Amino acid sequence: MTVIEAFDAVDIIRAKRDHKTLSTAEIQWLIDAYTRGYVADEQMSALTMAILLNGMQREEIRDLTLAIIASGVRMDFSQLGKPTVDKHSTGGVGDKITLPLMPLVASFGVAVPQLSGRGLGHTGGTLDKLESIRGWRADLTNDEMFEQLRTIGGVICAAGSGLAPADKRLYALRDATGTVEAIPLIASSIMSKKIAEGTAALVLDVKFGSGAFMQDFDRALELARTMVDLGNDAGVATTALLTDMNVPLGLTIGNANEVRESVEVLAGGGPSDVRELTLELAREMLRLVGQPDADVEAALDSGRAMDSWRAAILAQDGDPDAPLPQARESHTVTAPASGVLSRQDALPFGVASWRLGAGRARMTDAVVHAAGIDLHAKPGDAVVEGQPLFTLLADDAARIPRALESLAGAWEIAPAGTFFTPAPLIAARVD
Amino acid sequence: MTVIEAFDAVDIIRAKRDHKTLSTAEIQWLIDAYTRGYVADEQMSALTMAILLNGMQREEIRDLTLAIIASGVRMDFSQLGKPTVDKHSTGGVGDKITLPLMPLVASFGVAVPQLSGRGLGHTGGTLDKLESIRGWRADLTNDEMFEQLRTIGGVICAAGSGLAPADKRLYALRDATGTVEAIPLIASSIMSKKIAEGTAALVLDVKFGSGAFMQDFDRALELARTMVDLGNDAGVATTALLTDMNVPLGLTIGNANEVRESVEVLAGGGPSDVRELTLELAREMLRLVGQPDADVEAALDSGRAMDSWRAAILAQDGDPDAPLPQARESHTVTAPASGVLSRQDALPFGVASWRLGAGRARMTDAVVHAAGIDLHAKPGDAVVEGQPLFTLLADDAARIPRALESLAGAWEIAPAGTFFTPAPLIAARVD
Repeated sequence: MTVIEAFDAVDIIRAKRDHKTLSTAEIQWLIDAYTRGYVADEQMSALTMAILLNGMQREEIRDLTLAIIASGVRMDFSQLGKPTVDKHSTGGVGDKITLPLMPLVASFGVAVPQLSGRGLGHTGGTLDKLESIRGWRADLTNDEMFEQLRTIGGVICAAGSGLAPADKRLYALRDATGTVEAIPLIASSIMSKKIAEGTAALVLDVKFGSGAFMQDFDRALELARTMVDLGNDAGVATTALLTDMNVPLGLTIGNANEVRESVEVLAGGGPSDVRELTLELAREMLRLVGQPDADVEAALDSGRAMDSWRAAILAQDGDPDAPLPQARESHTVTAPASGVLSRQDALPFGVASWRLGAGRARMTDAVVHAAGIDLHAKPGDAVVEGQPLFTLLADDAARIPRALESLAGAWEIAPAGTFFTPAPLIAARVD
Repeated sequence: MTVIEAFDAVDIIRAKRDHKTLSTAEIQWLIDAYTRGYVADEQMSALTMAILLNGMQREEIRDLTLAIIASGVRMDFSQLGKPTVDKHSTGGVGDKITLPLMPLVASFGVAVPQLSGRGLGHTGGTLDKLESIRGWRADLTNDEMFEQLRTIGGVICAAGSGLAPADKRLYALRDATGTVEAIPLIASSIMSKKIAEGTAALVLDVKFGSGAFMQDFDRALELARTMVDLGNDAGVATTALLTDMNVPLGLTIGNANEVRESVEVLAGGGPSDVRELTLELAREMLRLVGQPDADVEAALDSGRAMDSWRAAILAQDGDPDAPLPQARESHTVTAPASGVLSRQDALPFGVASWRLGAGRARMTDAVVHAAGIDLHAKPGDAVVEGQPLFTLLADDAARIPRALESLAGAWEIAPAGTFFTPAPLIAARVD
């Protein structure tokens, strides 16, 4: 029998307000009492503001995360007989890396339990993107998920609502009270779900730049450091890459078009930045599960990763050969002059994609799978007057003007011969 | 027609979180929307925590106070034909000053509209104390109150719930969320009620020391400065005295016994500290309404103030000559040795009084009018072994042991001849 010591919510709020460190027992009691309704939303929001302004120690962040995990079920893959490793991205414009990465890593005999969500981004979440594939279903039973991990190795499916339920309530509260930006709370929110999911190892793709949640590099680095420490403190081998999100990733932003690009990467092609990040994250994941010398390029180029992809899609009733949805309406913007594409700002391209219907405004909205943007040039590319720069895709022509509005000033062509060095995609590694 | 600009609560919370200054329009919208239920308690509590930690500018505090006042009715005494002046104390152990002060100041032809509450202190509030007097009633109609101000000049009665209703909700929220201690919020809470009450001038008695809400002198000074500026910014001539509350005020702590002591002061006697503070606050109030040379000592000694007292009590159906309630049980503590009483700590004496039944734990509790403590010596007094030091008064003997518990270590007798200088009662004046 566990006896939980009783505390007073006001005492805990005051302690954090006065820059004190909360004890493990206080944090356990708080999250449990909040889940049970003994601590009110207005008390929790005052505390989250105090955390945002006064911070939390590493031990407090660990305790908070474990308490959030304890509010729900925790999965266990120790009976699988193979190592588990997962990847989490803080999200960006054109970020489809989970799609090629899961089958690539799974093809090395590793279990990749990629439990995903839908979210409110510029495009759909990973599940929305995969739902572009005819027949594919996101909801699996636990038995189906285990079986797929055992046989194929990789699975992308919906996370059950039983994982870290306290996080869901806390996140909604933070969203309404101006406390989303607190690093200890961002870290515990992300990591509670990933740790509850039962993975033994985790690689984080923490993005910075205009299209990222954390635009500032230093804040992104702090978040990465916090999450890596937290994962390791909680027994999950964790590392992070800090990657640039000032420019869209790859040449597609949307859902169906991102699936198409992911398949190109699995076929050994695709845009160089998507391929590079997929390979680097795969190396990182395989290093964590004891395969530091895995030849991930060969796995893409030989078709081995594609085999895993097809098997995983088929296992979830998807047809990997079915044509992807096509947009009914499109509008192509061409280069007004010859020169070098010198700017392509991720955030306005993300907003445009969202306005075209690729993302959702409320969790109850549906995404338009065929909507989004195809890019025909990337920063640094030479362009000639009249060549297509990007194509907007939508099911409703009325969406196009507002998307174009958000793209005004979002890209630029510099005179031919302008010296241009793209920023490195991977800026730092944290372990 | 006033058009109120619409804002977003989350934007306002974020602005304060990020150390920005809120505009008048933002603050007006916020309090109005909170009163109407468009801003949720959890949003307001996050904001109050941000205010506690990041502070508010003088203009913001004024705007907040005016917005709280605008949530209810505002009284207007301009038709009375005489100046109005009020006093507010932040509260202390044995603080009965309102009782002799109101009739003293009123006896100079000034209107003193002392709208009071009950509260959760160590003793009852001013209204509870006066209810020790047979027949006296706290609830007056507005017409009765105006008539009494016109004829007698002074009135102590219950503040209607129509004054600053947003403050009531905000205070309950702060109490539950660890944000009571924010000086901008304390100041706006106190001053919104006083300004809404319609007085033209106000003297604040801001207490510091063990028996005060603000124990620390510097914090009390900051609160006094904030409230004085706020009052003057809102058009109410305001000054403050900072007074010592490390020792109980006077020789009585309770309700009926405090009335008895107040009448002694009105008769020209009473303990020197109660008389001194009454006179000093009266001089301050009369100075604000243009009577800097009023002979307040003479008004006490001549019985003129007593006449005002009797008239005011009678006007509210009280019998100024009726015997006050007597406690059924008493317990006197005597000096264990001869020497000098060197310590009498206000806080534990307040707690003991509360345990004897003089105060309430919940707003729905009744106070025991006869309960409390009579002191027989004050710090600096020479005492001889066996002489009474103080007497506990209660209606139920079972309350006495727990009261005695809280007094362990609360007082001390130093060897005869010990050098002892009491701290000055009035430590500073702020205008």
